[in-house]
Amino acid sequence: MSNTRIERDSMGELRVPEAALYGAQTQRAVDNFPISHQRMPAQFIRALILAKAAAAQANVELKQISAPQGEAIVEAAQILLTGDFMEHFPVDIFQTGSGTSSNMNANEVIATLATRLLGEQVNPNDHVNCGQSSNDIIPTTIHVSAALGLHEQLLPALTHLVEVIERKAVEAHVHVKTGRTHLMDAMPVRMSQVLNGWAQQLKANIEHLHNLQPALQSLAQGGTAVGTGINAHPQFAGLFSQQLSELTQVKFTPGKDLFALIGSQDTAVSVSGQLKATAVSLMKIANDLRWMNSGPLAGLGEIELEALQPGSSIMPGKVNPVIPEATAMVAAQVIGNDTVITVAGQSGNFELNVMLPVIAQNLLSSIELLANSSRLLADKAIASFKVNEAKLKEALSRNPILVTALNPIIGYQKAAEIAKTAYQQGRPVIDVALEYTDLPRSQLEVLLDPEKLTAGGV
Amino acid sequence: MSNTRIERDSMGELRVPEAALYGAQTQRAVDNFPISHQRMPAQFIRALILAKAAAAQANVELKQISAPQGEAIVEAAQILLTGDFMEHFPVDIFQTGSGTSSNMNANEVIATLATRLLGEQVNPNDHVNCGQSSNDIIPTTIHVSAALGLHEQLLPALTHLVEVIERKAVEAHVHVKTGRTHLMDAMPVRMSQVLNGWAQQLKANIEHLHNLQPALQSLAQGGTAVGTGINAHPQFAGLFSQQLSELTQVKFTPGKDLFALIGSQDTAVSVSGQLKATAVSLMKIANDLRWMNSGPLAGLGEIELEALQPGSSIMPGKVNPVIPEATAMVAAQVIGNDTVITVAGQSGNFELNVMLPVIAQNLLSSIELLANSSRLLADKAIASFKVNEAKLKEALSRNPILVTALNPIIGYQKAAEIAKTAYQQGRPVIDVALEYTDLPRSQLEVLLDPEKLTAGGV
Amino acid sequence: MSNTRIERDSMGELRVPEAALYGAQTQRAVDNFPISHQRMPAQFIRALILAKAAAAQANVELKQISAPQGEAIVEAAQILLTGDFMEHFPVDIFQTGSGTSSNMNANEVIATLATRLLGEQVNPNDHVNCGQSSNDIIPTTIHVSAALGLHEQLLPALTHLVEVIERKAVEAHVHVKTGRTHLMDAMPVRMSQVLNGWAQQLKANIEHLHNLQPALQSLAQGGTAVGTGINAHPQFAGLFSQQLSELTQVKFTPGKDLFALIGSQDTAVSVSGQLKATAVSLMKIANDLRWMNSGPLAGLGEIELEALQPGSSIMPGKVNPVIPEATAMVAAQVIGNDTVITVAGQSGNFELNVMLPVIAQNLLSSIELLANSSRLLADKAIASFKVNEAKLKEALSRNPILVTALNPIIGYQKAAEIAKTAYQQGRPVIDVALEYTDLPRSQLEVLLDPEKLTAGGV
Amino acid sequence: MSNTRIERDSMGELRVPEAALYGAQTQRAVDNFPISHQRMPAQFIRALILAKAAAAQANVELKQISAPQGEAIVEAAQILLTGDFMEHFPVDIFQTGSGTSSNMNANEVIATLATRLLGEQVNPNDHVNCGQSSNDIIPTTIHVSAALGLHEQLLPALTHLVEVIERKAVEAHVHVKTGRTHLMDAMPVRMSQVLNGWAQQLKANIEHLHNLQPALQSLAQGGTAVGTGINAHPQFAGLFSQQLSELTQVKFTPGKDLFALIGSQDTAVSVSGQLKATAVSLMKIANDLRWMNSGPLAGLGEIELEALQPGSSIMPGKVNPVIPEATAMVAAQVIGNDTVITVAGQSGNFELNVMLPVIAQNLLSSIELLANSSRLLADKAIASFKVNEAKLKEALSRNPILVTALNPIIGYQKAAEIAKTAYQQGRPVIDVALEYTDLPRSQLEVLLDPEKLTAGGV
Repeated sequence: MSNTRIERDSMGELRVPEAALYGAQTQRAVDNFPISHQRMPAQFIRALILAKAAAAQANVELKQISAPQGEAIVEAAQILLTGDFMEHFPVDIFQTGSGTSSNMNANEVIATLATRLLGEQVNPNDHVNCGQSSNDIIPTTIHVSAALGLHEQLLPALTHLVEVIERKAVEAHVHVKTGRTHLMDAMPVRMSQVLNGWAQQLKANIEHLHNLQPALQSLAQGGTAVGTGINAHPQFAGLFSQQLSELTQVKFTPGKDLFALIGSQDTAVSVSGQLKATAVSLMKIANDLRWMNSGPLAGLGEIELEALQPGSSIMPGKVNPVIPEATAMVAAQVIGNDTVITVAGQSGNFELNVMLPVIAQNLLSSIELLANSSRLLADKAIASFKVNEAKLKEALSRNPILVTALNPIIGYQKAAEIAKTAYQQGRPVIDVALEYTDLPRSQLEVLLDPEKLTAGGV
Repeated sequence: MSNTRIERDSMGELRVPEAALYGAQTQRAVDNFPISHQRMPAQFIRALILAKAAAAQANVELKQISAPQGEAIVEAAQILLTGDFMEHFPVDIFQTGSGTSSNMNANEVIATLATRLLGEQVNPNDHVNCGQSSNDIIPTTIHVSAALGLHEQLLPALTHLVEVIERKAVEAHVHVKTGRTHLMDAMPVRMSQVLNGWAQQLKANIEHLHNLQPALQSLAQGGTAVGTGINAHPQFAGLFSQQLSELTQVKFTPGKDLFALIGSQDTAVSVSGQLKATAVSLMKIANDLRWMNSGPLAGLGEIELEALQPGSSIMPGKVNPVIPEATAMVAAQVIGNDTVITVAGQSGNFELNVMLPVIAQNLLSSIELLANSSRLLADKAIASFKVNEAKLKEALSRNPILVTALNPIIGYQKAAEIAKTAYQQGRPVIDVALEYTDLPRSQLEVLLDPEKLTAGGV
Repeated sequence: MSNTRIERDSMGELRVPEAALYGAQTQRAVDNFPISHQRMPAQFIRALILAKAAAAQANVELKQISAPQGEAIVEAAQILLTGDFMEHFPVDIFQTGSGTSSNMNANEVIATLATRLLGEQVNPNDHVNCGQSSNDIIPTTIHVSAALGLHEQLLPALTHLVEVIERKAVEAHVHVKTGRTHLMDAMPVRMSQVLNGWAQQLKANIEHLHNLQPALQSLAQGGTAVGTGINAHPQFAGLFSQQLSELTQVKFTPGKDLFALIGSQDTAVSVSGQLKATAVSLMKIANDLRWMNSGPLAGLGEIELEALQPGSSIMPGKVNPVIPEATAMVAAQVIGNDTVITVAGQSGNFELNVMLPVIAQNLLSSIELLANSSRLLADKAIASFKVNEAKLKEALSRNPILVTALNPIIGYQKAAEIAKTAYQQGRPVIDVALEYTDLPRSQLEVLLDPEKLTAGGV
Repeated sequence: MSNTRIERDSMGELRVPEAALYGAQTQRAVDNFPISHQRMPAQFIRALILAKAAAAQANVELKQISAPQGEAIVEAAQILLTGDFMEHFPVDIFQTGSGTSSNMNANEVIATLATRLLGEQVNPNDHVNCGQSSNDIIPTTIHVSAALGLHEQLLPALTHLVEVIERKAVEAHVHVKTGRTHLMDAMPVRMSQVLNGWAQQLKANIEHLHNLQPALQSLAQGGTAVGTGINAHPQFAGLFSQQLSELTQVKFTPGKDLFALIGSQDTAVSVSGQLKATAVSLMKIANDLRWMNSGPLAGLGEIELEALQPGSSIMPGKVNPVIPEATAMVAAQVIGNDTVITVAGQSGNFELNVMLPVIAQNLLSSIELLANSSRLLADKAIASFKVNEAKLKEALSRNPILVTALNPIIGYQKAAEIAKTAYQQGRPVIDVALEYTDLPRSQLEVLLDPEKLTAGGV
């Protein structure tokens, strides 16, 4: 169809599109893996290009490649990063388990550009990949892309969500509602207590993610083929991390044990496990929002979420909690992504895990989905919902469970009798308590005041 | 502590409790695997003993062992089955991946009893295990125990649950309630439609489980060590299945390809996947029950589940939906059991899957949990809940979404205006419709009658 | 940036790109859900368009819309299907849980085209969506797209894989190799037995998928908003299925209980569970291939997979088992997709499951990935691998475990002594057997012949 | 059958076994939940009893109960803890989702014992449960039991495993073997590098678990019914944690936000996710051991694991890697337990998660299984395996991939030609390199020395 040129690698010749910046090995991978038609994620390719630039700078300093070669590689990387580079990275996610095809894709594209810039041959293997192996650069790229994703996307988004929730808690502090345990009417709580509980759930997740950042920012680079560092200069790992830290403004360090970082993907498994935990928290929050918003008439109707779009193609006037629903679907996807990473994390035999591309894809997907949905949940659901105070009040006023407050005075058995009678006769609990106890109405009014009960204490 | 005797196997001597019916290899396994302190499930051991009896009968017929030896083995098996045999089967679930320790445990216990009965030596390997290998008898036992579990426990329990739901649907047909999509008020439905929907969910699961029974009743027996059938008589597989079918009254057949049945646990993976699907259905039903029962005042309050126990150690008079909660926890456990089996199912390399005991445990656990919770859900929740007709009526009467019924006459846009106005002004939708359309009240009353709307149609 | 036009829906006006075939509600969804930047899968949109065409034909027959309206809708659908329609379907996967945005997207695009074709207004809600609700058309589309995926992609691909394996088994029948249980040397097997075992694993999966096809081809259509069929003609469901069957050449039928099909996604959960089981089978096969191919010198080296690309960016001459690795990664992804569907399947409350888009995406992804990787595994790995007969022979000749064949003659204990001696002294088992038994060499040669042992029998 | 006595609770009377220390509510739960016949784990009950003792001490100090009542409760707790208390705790795991039945079980048993000790009535609700609700004491007990499990069982076991691996690494440093990536021959590694890589995997897991300890040791106690602390003294939470810390020698603190700790089980989800990550690491290590041990003749045969039991009921002399297999099964189970906790963690609606018992069971199971299998893996597999140096040497000497070391001198393309020629002609790579390059044999001998290559560097 389109014009092609001939390229060759160690296996022989093949045809590559005329305009392609990539070469033979990329083309071979395109031909070999027509599986998902989904490419490696942009955040992964971006991190890989950054790593190639850092490697070139380290190699120049260590005199493994010439300064002009190094500069050409760095400049090529910058050209790619400032443009839309994805068209040059056509390799399927489902490829060789080491991600070698993506590594060679980056080596080839950068070598082509660098050769043009320099006016002499820059070799994909000997120069761009100098001191590296797919076996260290791909695990490195997984860590770097995920670390940047946490740093730039997810942690700021979760922090934003916490702030929005806490602001809403201040605003909604005045509202007292019926607490629910087992979905059944329980003692009253403030809307602010509910919201601050969610905020604390998210703050705990943020802290757990923070605790995993040092591991994620610890890199396999320098291990080369099997972890021994064969063909890499002994100072390469240190210089590489230093250069990459400067390029990204995130602190990266050489790993303590490169065999562990190449043979396993344990850090990805731990991080994904914590992303899954964050998804579980968001699922809880999204469901609480959906239920509080339910109705408006035949549901709980405690709040009204902002209307964003018509809710039904058949039922006119219907408005649905679409942002919490989208968030819940994100949570489901992140939980499934974690399963993929758990299965893939078991596939390290001996010196290399060979499910690297699928780990990269699922880890970065989880980070992006959680980040984007957290912002939407903050801005289009939590910031803007209205509280239906009338509905809250009505339910509170009839709640026999308030009798719990009398336990310390009259004992659990007597309190149970009062509650049952109030339920059966549909009477206000205070009236029944008057009959069953010696307490005067004035004291009962104080003891059974829902608002006071939210402050706890005996 | 207690008295011991000396036993020996091909590795040498060791001490065994004086009273133990088992011998050296069982004792070795007890010593080697102090991991979970949980033994192989009784249903598994029962099926293993049944299989040993069937094998002995087949071996006698094929003249591989003598008739008196065979009779002694069968009688020993019957003694075990009619007593409480578990004390003689102390091997941990987390043992050798082939379950050889449990196979030898059965061989040793039966050999000890058979020797006593016969008055001469019955050998665990040469007689009780004759024509068998752990590699075929353990996969066989997984299939047999699960097949019996489906046949005797789960399918009858699910069928019972369907019957109870369908009976309840007849009883509750009269009740019309607000349907909910996205948890938001939608068009009305009959309580019987809700219940029959649940029944159909379960019937579909029953049918899918039925479709998997032939695979589950197809056995690895006859493959011996690697699937070739080395050391087993060519007619052994056929006779074994025939004898076992007679003993159990369930139809078992020799597998089409014994290599597949020994090298993989694919049938267990498929069956577990369908048990998980059943768990997902039960989760939906349990949650619908929990929400319909929620309140009673600050929730939906559509039904009242039977009170089974005091609900709170602190809040008197509280009654919780404990059976649906227990059912939901069962669903969670079955979903997790399926994960175990999915991971374990991948652990077949070459001629043998080596996670057989953990597959057996999780598969049988899922069957038992689903069976027992289905019966409880039927008898202690669905059969006995009461419908709160007053609450249903109240919500229906105020539902502007009923305007949907006017779409075919006045179009979606106009209907949407009516619904919004009714919501905003808190007015009955029929009053607003009178203003916005030319339709007379008498026609609107017919068109907007909730009960009629549950019959569907234009 | 680009030119826009004003569109309006029941919530008001907004700007839509000038060239867009879609309208206000699609645009609202694009604005509301900037989450994954991944659109609903093409196979889903294709099935949705087919369903819209079938619905139009049914509605014309039932006189719900005019014949010219119906013809315009059908023609519009055909124009979309024959072109590349994806640019007109920009809605994110993570959207409203009902998929209403995608339904309205289809309604709007088809209405725009149909209006142009007809020269008069075709309305998205009243004409294209006539007799439908998102609540029935989206579950219907999930079933239809998955059913077509099974029919057109996955089952043919698995069947092809079976055929290739069975052909290879004929070709490789001559090769006998050491069987392995627990990864340890066991009795010999034929390469054809190994391959036929794999084929049988896949045939069982095909059969289980076949058994689920009737459920998948049973549709929610006709239930409209909550399952009652409000606003749909009573004959609509039947005619719709008939028309769709003609359009697709796959037999679709109206569901037995529409409440179950709208309130739950149980069929998707069951089908996904079986796709996961198929993934587990492929994982086993892929791993067996990888290990048989391992080495070539320091591994098992039993086979040599076709070399498809250079294996290492640093280790020259290295060739890796890339197709089995890609297959194993597909298996991991499908297992994770099943987790998503399992979580999502639990999210049906009352009359609607609200995780439909994420279920659609993961179900169709699993079908496509399994189909494409099965073909690759067949054509680029199994069809072309070579057997290293010399390596097989060498290992077989030294295997003391062959002594198993003597059990029926000399008993397990004596055979164990022979095997241990042979291992310890590194001697051929036949020589040791000569010393430990009275059997003549000629008989031992027959009894211990690996090739004969693969035929099993006593 | 056995003698019974009459007991009563707020729902009425029922019969309890004469000898039972528990009362009416426990009996009701026994009757209500005949599901799994598996009781709540002993570690959970132990932590619950400890918490009851700590609560009594705090309540005495706060004058909520009398000193004699408090002393009787503490003494009763100690009697239970020093005996075998499980017979008095018969409640099924699958019970009310709040664990109220287990809380009341503890309240009743302790009250019975305390009443006997004191000679006057100690009430289960008003005294033993004073200042508590199931809603705070059960989440507290989950945290306490898991924290003690980490502290007393798992972390010491993992540390022991690390020490054993590191000792083995020193011992095995001398051995150099062929590295493997993609299972294919790669550059050489030292056995000590392999082992230290495993140790580092485990050390990272230990560190991640350490980071989660503060969250786990942070308690819901003081929140009572819904998080507000209704009916608890404001100083109760602080005193409780202090008393519990003294009783257990582990530092517990009141949670920052009690609503989050009661409404969600996020900490359990995070901890379980990290236990799952540890399981994934152990799976990798167990599989590496299994494969290195494979053969002995037709496998890799690099090491020989200690023989612990006869490996086969049919193949004499076979010894299998049973400890790594048991470990791998533990890993599968822990991964599945995490799925249960992930599903259960999503089941918090509003003020209470209602899958507490199943979370407790699976979390404690994971901790115990990982602890026990780690010790076995250390002591019965890693400490005692022997290295087969002859086998390692033989494979290394023939490995053409060593040519990688020449890349920096002759370039990747030339090195690839040498490697291919060496493979094809089955010749030592040094001989081919002599022909293809100008390098003298003496230099090549240095460059290609496997032992030197494990030190990495250019």
